Amino acid sequence: MKNIYVIGVGLIGGSLAKDIKANNPEVIIHGISRKETTLDQALSLGLIDKKATLDDIEHADLVIVSIPVDATVKLLPSILDKISDNGLVIDAGSTKEAICKVVENHPKRRNFLAAHPIAGTEYSGPSAAISGLFKGKTNIICEVEKTAFKLQEKALDIFRALGMRIRYMNPEAHDKHIAYVSHLSHISSFMLGKTVIEKEKNERDIFDMAGSGFASTVRLAKSSPEMWTPIFKQNKANVIETLEGYIKNLTQFKELMEDDDFDAIFKEMKDTNHITDILNGIN
Amino acid sequence: MKNIYVIGVGLIGGSLAKDIKANNPEVIIHGISRKETTLDQALSLGLIDKKATLDDIEHADLVIVSIPVDATVKLLPSILDKISDNGLVIDAGSTKEAICKVVENHPKRRNFLAAHPIAGTEYSGPSAAISGLFKGKTNIICEVEKTAFKLQEKALDIFRALGMRIRYMNPEAHDKHIAYVSHLSHISSFMLGKTVIEKEKNERDIFDMAGSGFASTVRLAKSSPEMWTPIFKQNKANVIETLEGYIKNLTQFKELMEDDDFDAIFKEMKDTNHITDILNGIN
Repeated sequence: MKNIYVIGVGLIGGSLAKDIKANNPEVIIHGISRKETTLDQALSLGLIDKKATLDDIEHADLVIVSIPVDATVKLLPSILDKISDNGLVIDAGSTKEAICKVVENHPKRRNFLAAHPIAGTEYSGPSAAISGLFKGKTNIICEVEKTAFKLQEKALDIFRALGMRIRYMNPEAHDKHIAYVSHLSHISSFMLGKTVIEKEKNERDIFDMAGSGFASTVRLAKSSPEMWTPIFKQNKANVIETLEGYIKNLTQFKELMEDDDFDAIFKEMKDTNHITDILNGIN
Repeated sequence: MKNIYVIGVGLIGGSLAKDIKANNPEVIIHGISRKETTLDQALSLGLIDKKATLDDIEHADLVIVSIPVDATVKLLPSILDKISDNGLVIDAGSTKEAICKVVENHPKRRNFLAAHPIAGTEYSGPSAAISGLFKGKTNIICEVEKTAFKLQEKALDIFRALGMRIRYMNPEAHDKHIAYVSHLSHISSFMLGKTVIEKEKNERDIFDMAGSGFASTVRLAKSSPEMWTPIFKQNKANVIETLEGYIKNLTQFKELMEDDDFDAIFKEMKDTNHITDILNGIN
């Protein structure tokens, strides 16, 4: 492995580039981006060694696609058109069904591995890239059997070196579960932020009274709309289902309060405290 | 100031006791609790110097009331009945209207200061008490003019030594604002946890796929139902108002998705990113 091309050198692509370079100082990291300024920033931050364009990827041993999922769906077939016979293309998108679908009949399907490294922060862009982001985190791989065996091995070596735990799943199951444990959290956080901003015209009051609990629940409302809009679009049916469940539960909670049924309110919370056991496994 | 009585030696009372003792090694911290086991734990953790009962508080220079807000409303008048002429009673409840109301005509009203130190974690009980919990945090004081001037000064000295920022507010405004920046966050978190637990029967999948974003939004769902049920009960009208706003926004977001209006979805998120500026002031 000599030439690695990273398409999209933001939080995920930049962090991957950083760790892979640290693990393999001999590789050359080539950065590709729609924006020249992004590449300049990635260069000056030392995330990439060289600037490149999509035309160059015929020289790639590995291509990492870490751009918004709508751009991945659009670009992935042409990236595979260009990849060499021994080259590997890995994506890092938060949706998997549409991405797997768009290349299902591509003659180079075996050169592609569909992945979702579940790691990130609420920040974005090259300056958000950090070392060790993937350590101990889960990487969901979809349709592994459709990737050439030798390229699977290559990918697993990279993920192992990053310290990731691997889980295999089909794209439909991935998109359904991730809607609950990731996509819904983002919407709940954005709408919480919106609700508070709307009502609290005097922001000084929010600032003064908000504690760490509010900061924690609303943190994801800093996330990038450029990245999240296409995720919600591609995972529309699942995300709507989670929203329906969430709105139903909130409405029921409100009705219990209106009915002064605080024994039931207590029970609702007591039953959910059980989330502690689940969360103990995270972080 | 020699004898301090802390009623409720959990997260808040225990943390206050710890810091006050550290700042004033000469004081004796007396712990009061319904449960003998709690007092034993607080003693062995070094949070309190002695066990006491409500009958002893005639000897108190300072009483800190840090118990669930329904218990505060019930006990506060009888605590004030017993306090000496120079004794000060401070509460730490997350609601202020009902607490201020219950003692508004009490002959010892001037011996009481209504406070809400906005600090905490999702844990509870004596073992949750930590040093420095209040440093840099906001303390809302209500109806300060109803407290004797000398006792106001005494309280402010203590809060300053804890490193707290003081804000003055009337109880109605406190309860209205805090519903948005604290109480709603707790419900959004509990209902998010519930929604995910309900749908994800196979918890192994949650554990494996949930990232730090989910952990952050659902962290408050570990909070104590014993503490939060009476808060929601006392702040019912305001909390229901916040829930209505939140449900409305979530429903609108869902409808935009159903209508495939992803330009509007983008705009919703972009507009709310602005929360970053507000959050920069917290933590």
